[in-house]
Amino acid sequence: MDVYLDNSATTKVLDSVKDLMVETFVSDYGNPSSMHQKGMDAENYIKDARNIIAKLLKAEEKEIIFTSGGTESNNLALIGAALANQRAGKHLITSCIEHPSVRNVMKYLEENGFCVTYLSVDKNGMVDLKMLTEAIREDTILVSIMYVNNEIGTVEPIEEIANRIKQKNPKILFHVDAIQAFGKYRIYPKRIGIDLLSVSGHKIHGPKGSGFLYIRSGVKIRPILLGGGQQKGIRSGTENVAAIAGLGQAAKEAYQNFEQKIERLYQLKERFVKGIEKIEGTYIHGFSERCSAPHIVSVGFLGVRSEVLLHALEEKGIFVSAGSACSSNKTAESITLKGIKAAKEYLDSTLRFSFSVFTTEEEIDYCLSVLQELLVVLRRYARK
Amino acid sequence: MDVYLDNSATTKVLDSVKDLMVETFVSDYGNPSSMHQKGMDAENYIKDARNIIAKLLKAEEKEIIFTSGGTESNNLALIGAALANQRAGKHLITSCIEHPSVRNVMKYLEENGFCVTYLSVDKNGMVDLKMLTEAIREDTILVSIMYVNNEIGTVEPIEEIANRIKQKNPKILFHVDAIQAFGKYRIYPKRIGIDLLSVSGHKIHGPKGSGFLYIRSGVKIRPILLGGGQQKGIRSGTENVAAIAGLGQAAKEAYQNFEQKIERLYQLKERFVKGIEKIEGTYIHGFSERCSAPHIVSVGFLGVRSEVLLHALEEKGIFVSAGSACSSNKTAESITLKGIKAAKEYLDSTLRFSFSVFTTEEEIDYCLSVLQELLVVLRRYARK
Repeated sequence: MDVYLDNSATTKVLDSVKDLMVETFVSDYGNPSSMHQKGMDAENYIKDARNIIAKLLKAEEKEIIFTSGGTESNNLALIGAALANQRAGKHLITSCIEHPSVRNVMKYLEENGFCVTYLSVDKNGMVDLKMLTEAIREDTILVSIMYVNNEIGTVEPIEEIANRIKQKNPKILFHVDAIQAFGKYRIYPKRIGIDLLSVSGHKIHGPKGSGFLYIRSGVKIRPILLGGGQQKGIRSGTENVAAIAGLGQAAKEAYQNFEQKIERLYQLKERFVKGIEKIEGTYIHGFSERCSAPHIVSVGFLGVRSEVLLHALEEKGIFVSAGSACSSNKTAESITLKGIKAAKEYLDSTLRFSFSVFTTEEEIDYCLSVLQELLVVLRRYARK
Repeated sequence: MDVYLDNSATTKVLDSVKDLMVETFVSDYGNPSSMHQKGMDAENYIKDARNIIAKLLKAEEKEIIFTSGGTESNNLALIGAALANQRAGKHLITSCIEHPSVRNVMKYLEENGFCVTYLSVDKNGMVDLKMLTEAIREDTILVSIMYVNNEIGTVEPIEEIANRIKQKNPKILFHVDAIQAFGKYRIYPKRIGIDLLSVSGHKIHGPKGSGFLYIRSGVKIRPILLGGGQQKGIRSGTENVAAIAGLGQAAKEAYQNFEQKIERLYQLKERFVKGIEKIEGTYIHGFSERCSAPHIVSVGFLGVRSEVLLHALEEKGIFVSAGSACSSNKTAESITLKGIKAAKEYLDSTLRFSFSVFTTEEEIDYCLSVLQELLVVLRRYARK
């Protein structure tokens, strides 16, 4: 039995996505910049994807810029906005539990003359709103907060954050890393007050190497990749037609029968959480209720090293993550667990279980029963 | 009849490439950074591709960094090397006929305190070697010259350029944009003296959104995309496993029966050139002999606007490029034609025909006979 519970790391590509991509490989393989029909055929895939995504976000098509993935989206948003708007100030605000593709970009900007405030979070990973309000300065130009935390599934109060920022100064740009949220929440950036929104395709059953950045009309961005001037000069390089088409299709399907899908995910999560709570010496990081994301559960296991448990599960055909699996440094400390000041005994004893539309109740039950068995053995072993 | 003669803009994906990519979509869809078997399975595709490419270049595997395409490779090479080595100097050298993804990056670096010398080329597009030698200064840190010109197929004297640079100062880095050359020439960067080499997948029947940068071991590069630290921190972001696997496969096939393939391309080119020379009022830009690239012919047609001829050909099922088709600004002036000081009457009357392994003699003959017919009609019309 293969039980893939690492869907926050990446997901299986949908058949419909795969089929569309194959079309662009062997039939409609033109360069969208070519003036002839084969170029226009290729361009139509991009137009379709842009149209799908713009509608889902209730945004304009010109506000969608396709990138090579979530990391590029976050880099373009932060470096692009910081450099384009630095005349208005050089102060940036973010949280202490952001993904490395935000955190490390912030560090880079700090090295280049920007000043960054890192907001604390509470034990559930919620950003400190009071601290946010106090942190906003005259020279603040950009705030970047993730929608859903990738390690423990905390949902940040994005709308409230937007309100507080815009009340203080409507010119401050608000960037949201929605890489774990898109496809799980209906997100209308304009209505909420989001200026920049990063999304990745491979977290929603689209292809790796796909993503987009929503850039509110009027927001100044300096491109980070220069060249042929594709996508209005904001992102040069021959468009990855296959990836863009696949991303559009994946986005479309993610929001089909949306409420049912999310309800089902929550039911799976609740089934899993209930099972975990019955196992001695376990601790669920952050919220386990419906205020948290439907697809992520982070569990601490007393007295067992996460790497050991991960590989023991793997031998039973169950695939999960130790950290966030979005980092190449596989043994790195967890940014989020440190941020929420998780008890020391869990720092190296936590696994992330993440679900998708393909996850079944049987898989959840199997995982729970395997966990129960393994923990008895591993803990006995660990005590020796 | 569909005759695709725009292979320098982009190429059809090989079936073997497509099949390998599909495997990574539906079976081996893990995140290479995940610690479990599904992650390792995905990582193996990357290892295989890196191994193939390293062998083809007679390079080390660690010298291959995968990117989202040629544009990113060129950006990473130039911005990355310029910023990492600016303490040694801020002078850069390039040619006046580079692709926009080099040219516009150079302009960006100029805006950021670097000084750039643009070398002239002769009427065939060959870089002026004397000017190169004279241009090298105490503070020169980087020279960037393309291997094959994308518009007219000129092959630059890369080895001679490398020699002249390294004789003057072995510390000067030499970057080669080999996007139109890889798969057409055997390139051994270490032997030639190339420090950085950019390659794109979709020019060699691989997927769009794929590419790599060869970075000679020891060369300092500042990453342009920051995040999870994948690929030794030089290129963060979940690896596009499908694109990387596809690129590896395409590279492998490009060099199978290599001599025969290139011989065949030259024969097609010669057949085409011979036919063109029989048509009145035509002019072939640059060399048409075997010292030029086997797959590109740039033809000026007296008295006919390129856009008109392009669309007339399109109606007959023949797809070619007016400019380089690598730019979104489809009506932009040709950088190369300006660089070689092409006669004014050809500036807006030139088409690029570019061939691939799928091109046949029948297609060449069909294209020639259609051209002959069309030119009579269009020229008569233009005279009115």
